[in-house]
Amino acid sequence: MGLWDIDKIEYVGRDNIEQGLGFRYYDADKVVAGKKMKDWLRFGVAYWHTFDAELVDPFGVGTAHRPWAGKYSDPMDLALAKVDYAFEFFTKLGVEYFCFHDRDIAPEGDTLRETNAMLDKVVDKIEENMKATGVKLLWNTSSLFTNPRFVSGASTSPYADIYAYSAGQLKHSLEIAKRLGAENYVFWGGREGYENIWNTQMKREQEHMAKFFSMCHDYAKEIGLDAQFLIEPKAKEPTTHQYDFDAATAIAFLKTYGIDFMKLNLEGNHANLAGHTYQHEIRTAREAGYLGSLDANQGDKLLGWDLDEFPTDLYETVAVMWEVLDEGSIGPKGGLNFDAKPRRTSFYEEDLFRAHIAGMDAFAAGLLIADKMHQDKFIENLQAERYSSYDSGIGATIENGTATLATLEEYALDKPQAELIAATKSDHLECVKGTIGNYMIETLAKA
Amino acid sequence: MGLWDIDKIEYVGRDNIEQGLGFRYYDADKVVAGKKMKDWLRFGVAYWHTFDAELVDPFGVGTAHRPWAGKYSDPMDLALAKVDYAFEFFTKLGVEYFCFHDRDIAPEGDTLRETNAMLDKVVDKIEENMKATGVKLLWNTSSLFTNPRFVSGASTSPYADIYAYSAGQLKHSLEIAKRLGAENYVFWGGREGYENIWNTQMKREQEHMAKFFSMCHDYAKEIGLDAQFLIEPKAKEPTTHQYDFDAATAIAFLKTYGIDFMKLNLEGNHANLAGHTYQHEIRTAREAGYLGSLDANQGDKLLGWDLDEFPTDLYETVAVMWEVLDEGSIGPKGGLNFDAKPRRTSFYEEDLFRAHIAGMDAFAAGLLIADKMHQDKFIENLQAERYSSYDSGIGATIENGTATLATLEEYALDKPQAELIAATKSDHLECVKGTIGNYMIETLAKA
Amino acid sequence: MGLWDIDKIEYVGRDNIEQGLGFRYYDADKVVAGKKMKDWLRFGVAYWHTFDAELVDPFGVGTAHRPWAGKYSDPMDLALAKVDYAFEFFTKLGVEYFCFHDRDIAPEGDTLRETNAMLDKVVDKIEENMKATGVKLLWNTSSLFTNPRFVSGASTSPYADIYAYSAGQLKHSLEIAKRLGAENYVFWGGREGYENIWNTQMKREQEHMAKFFSMCHDYAKEIGLDAQFLIEPKAKEPTTHQYDFDAATAIAFLKTYGIDFMKLNLEGNHANLAGHTYQHEIRTAREAGYLGSLDANQGDKLLGWDLDEFPTDLYETVAVMWEVLDEGSIGPKGGLNFDAKPRRTSFYEEDLFRAHIAGMDAFAAGLLIADKMHQDKFIENLQAERYSSYDSGIGATIENGTATLATLEEYALDKPQAELIAATKSDHLECVKGTIGNYMIETLAKA
Amino acid sequence: MGLWDIDKIEYVGRDNIEQGLGFRYYDADKVVAGKKMKDWLRFGVAYWHTFDAELVDPFGVGTAHRPWAGKYSDPMDLALAKVDYAFEFFTKLGVEYFCFHDRDIAPEGDTLRETNAMLDKVVDKIEENMKATGVKLLWNTSSLFTNPRFVSGASTSPYADIYAYSAGQLKHSLEIAKRLGAENYVFWGGREGYENIWNTQMKREQEHMAKFFSMCHDYAKEIGLDAQFLIEPKAKEPTTHQYDFDAATAIAFLKTYGIDFMKLNLEGNHANLAGHTYQHEIRTAREAGYLGSLDANQGDKLLGWDLDEFPTDLYETVAVMWEVLDEGSIGPKGGLNFDAKPRRTSFYEEDLFRAHIAGMDAFAAGLLIADKMHQDKFIENLQAERYSSYDSGIGATIENGTATLATLEEYALDKPQAELIAATKSDHLECVKGTIGNYMIETLAKA
Repeated sequence: MGLWDIDKIEYVGRDNIEQGLGFRYYDADKVVAGKKMKDWLRFGVAYWHTFDAELVDPFGVGTAHRPWAGKYSDPMDLALAKVDYAFEFFTKLGVEYFCFHDRDIAPEGDTLRETNAMLDKVVDKIEENMKATGVKLLWNTSSLFTNPRFVSGASTSPYADIYAYSAGQLKHSLEIAKRLGAENYVFWGGREGYENIWNTQMKREQEHMAKFFSMCHDYAKEIGLDAQFLIEPKAKEPTTHQYDFDAATAIAFLKTYGIDFMKLNLEGNHANLAGHTYQHEIRTAREAGYLGSLDANQGDKLLGWDLDEFPTDLYETVAVMWEVLDEGSIGPKGGLNFDAKPRRTSFYEEDLFRAHIAGMDAFAAGLLIADKMHQDKFIENLQAERYSSYDSGIGATIENGTATLATLEEYALDKPQAELIAATKSDHLECVKGTIGNYMIETLAKA
Repeated sequence: MGLWDIDKIEYVGRDNIEQGLGFRYYDADKVVAGKKMKDWLRFGVAYWHTFDAELVDPFGVGTAHRPWAGKYSDPMDLALAKVDYAFEFFTKLGVEYFCFHDRDIAPEGDTLRETNAMLDKVVDKIEENMKATGVKLLWNTSSLFTNPRFVSGASTSPYADIYAYSAGQLKHSLEIAKRLGAENYVFWGGREGYENIWNTQMKREQEHMAKFFSMCHDYAKEIGLDAQFLIEPKAKEPTTHQYDFDAATAIAFLKTYGIDFMKLNLEGNHANLAGHTYQHEIRTAREAGYLGSLDANQGDKLLGWDLDEFPTDLYETVAVMWEVLDEGSIGPKGGLNFDAKPRRTSFYEEDLFRAHIAGMDAFAAGLLIADKMHQDKFIENLQAERYSSYDSGIGATIENGTATLATLEEYALDKPQAELIAATKSDHLECVKGTIGNYMIETLAKA
Repeated sequence: MGLWDIDKIEYVGRDNIEQGLGFRYYDADKVVAGKKMKDWLRFGVAYWHTFDAELVDPFGVGTAHRPWAGKYSDPMDLALAKVDYAFEFFTKLGVEYFCFHDRDIAPEGDTLRETNAMLDKVVDKIEENMKATGVKLLWNTSSLFTNPRFVSGASTSPYADIYAYSAGQLKHSLEIAKRLGAENYVFWGGREGYENIWNTQMKREQEHMAKFFSMCHDYAKEIGLDAQFLIEPKAKEPTTHQYDFDAATAIAFLKTYGIDFMKLNLEGNHANLAGHTYQHEIRTAREAGYLGSLDANQGDKLLGWDLDEFPTDLYETVAVMWEVLDEGSIGPKGGLNFDAKPRRTSFYEEDLFRAHIAGMDAFAAGLLIADKMHQDKFIENLQAERYSSYDSGIGATIENGTATLATLEEYALDKPQAELIAATKSDHLECVKGTIGNYMIETLAKA
Repeated sequence: MGLWDIDKIEYVGRDNIEQGLGFRYYDADKVVAGKKMKDWLRFGVAYWHTFDAELVDPFGVGTAHRPWAGKYSDPMDLALAKVDYAFEFFTKLGVEYFCFHDRDIAPEGDTLRETNAMLDKVVDKIEENMKATGVKLLWNTSSLFTNPRFVSGASTSPYADIYAYSAGQLKHSLEIAKRLGAENYVFWGGREGYENIWNTQMKREQEHMAKFFSMCHDYAKEIGLDAQFLIEPKAKEPTTHQYDFDAATAIAFLKTYGIDFMKLNLEGNHANLAGHTYQHEIRTAREAGYLGSLDANQGDKLLGWDLDEFPTDLYETVAVMWEVLDEGSIGPKGGLNFDAKPRRTSFYEEDLFRAHIAGMDAFAAGLLIADKMHQDKFIENLQAERYSSYDSGIGATIENGTATLATLEEYALDKPQAELIAATKSDHLECVKGTIGNYMIETLAKA
């Protein structure tokens, strides 16, 4: 069977209710809304969760059973071996993309030079595997948060040496992106924020961060890297306040510092931590022209931390895929990266497959349902009717910029209350909400 | 005694622990950090809470005992009478500012023309009282959220007639601002947001809102009104998502639409609803150049709605006043408006005074403590030391823009981990937190 | 057509995706799991939301269009007229139960005696309508929270006169329950809790509340009322802390005071405010023998107050109905009361029907899906396997009480870690979550 | 200086605002309210946080600098060495108690027998140190949550072997409690709860847990251990729902299973996670007779996980100590265990001292302030007046059990609304809140 004792996962359809190791909805080459499913979804596997996470939590050590466990005493041997496990996993699962942090794939040495040397050896092996399998790099990134040197930030560290180190580390990470043909390059500012506002110079730190991004962009141009740069917002963890709190906050930052070369990588669980739905964050980003890529996961709105659950809630995947269909793609070069880990009680190797399958099926189902909604123009019609008063008459003068307070006052000054009330229409919100569920049923019943 | 059976409130100091009708810390003319207390604090009374609120909540009718209750059967008579109550209240309390919505001070007629006519009569009386007492208008605003016509928004309503009405209403509100010499004009978008994202065209609604602000600004220029325009952010209530979620979101909006004539009016309880501290919101706004004015109140971080409690938590008032001292003022024309109401169980007339006194004393104490912190340079020194590595050497190259990834890599490439760790310093965060409490004690013990 | 310009709502099935005024899933007489749908669900209409609520919120006045608006100047005339509207509504919607607070159905006079007299007249008319239509009273209750006299509580008021008044009011409410054949009698302690713990004697207040319940129970026996008494837990609104925080807290209270005649009326939105899922609250109550009845609604887990939305989320209705099927009924005499109101933007009369239809269909669908899960023994099998080690061997000694620390130590003392790890099985949680969605699709596709 | 490069911490008073290594308020032998400060507070150091925690978080490895780092390659050597560090720490800090989990103090072997053997060696050394220093064991406990075998619970594990192992482990932990003279024995059910309710038999698991407690109690009696048994409630972490959600839930559990030998160990941060204030949890427990001991820490109400910050908020310590003074002690054998860790950026050895000092001073200040409030009978008088209507007349008939619905109805039936409203008094809540701050200032100004 190979390194994993699992056969290649195939589309089997919905023959029976039991969940086996096959896809119920994800049929990679099936054409939906003019594109293959796989091209709408562009699934990526997250190296850190799938090949490094041992399923620890703050109150318990790792529970994961992994096929490489105990086989390698040298960290480099382990790192190299995992590359083989990873590419067999991608291939058996049938995903075409993966994502990684530099620190996921190779151990650290005492100096950056030593670390880079080890990293390069693993990258060599990854490059070979990419060629051999055709699997591509959706994005890579640099871990500027795990090592204790980053305890107070990386590009926002109060300590210039740490900033310098971060810049050096990032430089090599960009070189790897170039070498491996990364389609995007992601910045998640895990430690970019504050624990306590009293000892923090927010503006100075953000200026440092802006300069950092500019240096990175300059270097990318220098080496001919054309990966799309992405910021990943998150509200509250691990720092008390993260600078990239949510999509709107990240946009305010980018506009404040005149950074025009970055878009956003959004995540469902992060949206919830900021008090938003995932759909809200996606809508905010795309309407502002900042939608870059998506992390596919879900949280629990009754819990206050990042769960990184595999996505299974169909209401949420429908909402995401509706926005994606409306946009035409996830983003110029975006995909759906599973920033998700199995629960601590799902510790078998097989669960890594099962969990990805559950997530891929949930998004494939979401795509099918959202496509039906688009075909029926359910949302489009609802909105078109709702805003129709701006298409002509006084509404048109508002949109075309000819209205003033005076012209509008004149229009409104003698309208009686009854006429104004009559101009507002009921939203039938309960029906709208109920209809989403009905679409789920109707569409998949016929899928 | 006048309309209220209460004597003028005087500064009495901290003679005994019992809370009477006197100020313990607020001594209006006392000079602190070069300005009189009253000029740092610029307290304002909120007309709606103090003269209109009957202390209802979603599960109960009003409990308030008010001196005008039952005396007037005609709404206009009541509205005119309340003006006298209000100005006696301001004078007895010793505040120099007040704030109101158009709909707080006068009843509505069937048409905007009729409504404006009634409004003007009350404004006449307010104008007289302002002249007679010297009390000034910190800001006025327009209620574009209470009437059912605004159920789906005002400048973001899907219905052009409602937009037109809102514009007409706003026009008159600006005329009143001009007439009464308002120092600021506030926009709180109570219904500007969405209940359900599926039926909402966010971008189109926000474009409408941006045009609305521009029309208002044009008209203000036309009539020579130089009040500072302010947006008041709030996260989640009454709509599911309010467009001006928090300071950063409002800044993103203003930058997106190129609106350069607006600043922010921030509020503590609103900050909490967005998941932030009040200090965070103030810092965010002022570092970005958007601090306009402040609403003085507090919430309960364990509850999920707008409580509008009078502010009594000294940790919070110290934080606010430290930011204000650091800024030099609340904002160019800002003040501290008590957007606060007594609890439903504090229903006596006297409680209106007691509650304001508690809030004014809490802010006066906050000012005294923050001033001591500034004098000692407690925070300044702590920050200066923390960021000192950017003042010279490699840090200076980062700040002056001469650094590149390559120069920084060269600097960092062979630094051993131990040296990097040594470059990061402990924050002693527990001591920082504990010290704020000590400042509270030490400063006020000697006040 | 009658008082409402709507035809009787019929089951029409899932012919097309458009939501009309017909049921897609609710087929009252269809037999599921041995009982008719209507007998599993026992839907009730809430008088207060449907016939009294004007769709106000804390920032806006009512938006509702109601057929009786403006027709009656005398409050008693209006109250009597609404009875006719209500029973026609029940009949057209096809629900067999309703629920009300005493204050929902009739206005208050200056004294309890006067109030009771008015109330009795409306009850006369309700009684006639019940006989004529066959609609039954799922429960009634007494509003001990709206009037300002209850500002600090009713049976937990610090003021004995208010306690006495509450007792008197309750007495008449029980008499009405007897007269109308109420199947349950509900106590929701809207003001039973505290705003501020410093001025509150929690224990004394709870002792008063316990005595109150006992007096009510004594009187019920005296008049031969055999309605099931129910407490309705809620966490945080309107008081800062409500004594009946959640199911477990209510159970602790009942056990502490030896009250054995009460069960619980649970609500989904209230569950969320306490940090729980609705399913958790139902499970907690039923396993402890306290499940009484259910309120059917939903909240928004990203918002912090009681929304009382009509239930449309199929994941939630499946969970509720699975628990109900497992229990055999909602409770001895329980039903599903729609403690739900249309959104403020769903203000047409028709929306009252639409919203109830959406809720009824969501629960009917939930019943169908949960029944399929039960038939397949999906959850039963999963649990049976998971706990099977307690069915024999050392596990059985634990359950049958023969184990001691010593016998268990002996069993475990020399077991190696590997054997212990092997004894724990993976939960495949992602698959369990995904499977619920699949059940939704599969079941309804064939419904 | 010894193992730690720090002198013994002394009480130095409030001479200057700078925070040095001395106590500002904690003066161990100072008599307050008839007892020495140290006897009211009974501070304990938590072994796990202070001697084991390396200050990791879910996104970063340890940052702590510890004096034993790198000195010992053998885990047993390290474990034994830490005992010396610990007792010197206790002595230099001047605390008389400590607390530990079995797994904090010694490494694990492959079998329980091997683990116990290692544990006993460390206990030998602890026993010697206790005798030498006079430091006592406030409580010990058993870690039934860290090892992967406990991934699905310990006494609520679905796997009987794990239950048996837990029982064996607990047996030895009780033996250690006996040997070291533990005053309390704590059960924190870290994994006792569920991740997913669908695969969980809640009642069966809770029955298992109840049997477990009973076996432990039987064994304690058998070996003559008279430590007070304590449950420690926590709401949401690490499992989605923890069975001991809060004080009320734990009380419901204890009453349901007739467990009369356990009290509660409460924690501030855990209270917040359940949606409560710490004061609420303490009041709930003590009024029900279940107050056992306290964990001294604080969280951040805007964050959703367990921060375990050292306590510095004076409002919170005043509230805790007021409840303790009112109770007469923390509990029969309780103390204040610092279940707290320095922030990840407070990584120096000295910060361990600084953080404890900040916490001890905050509680000492809280004691002084609360004592002043008690002396002045501030709260007592406020409450006495508020509830005085129950001391005689109709109120007395309610409390003495002679009232019935009928007698109360008769009393209330003809009371006009105005009289009822007049019977309710204003709470002046803003003043109550403000007064707590004033007490803080006034008391400490004179301390």
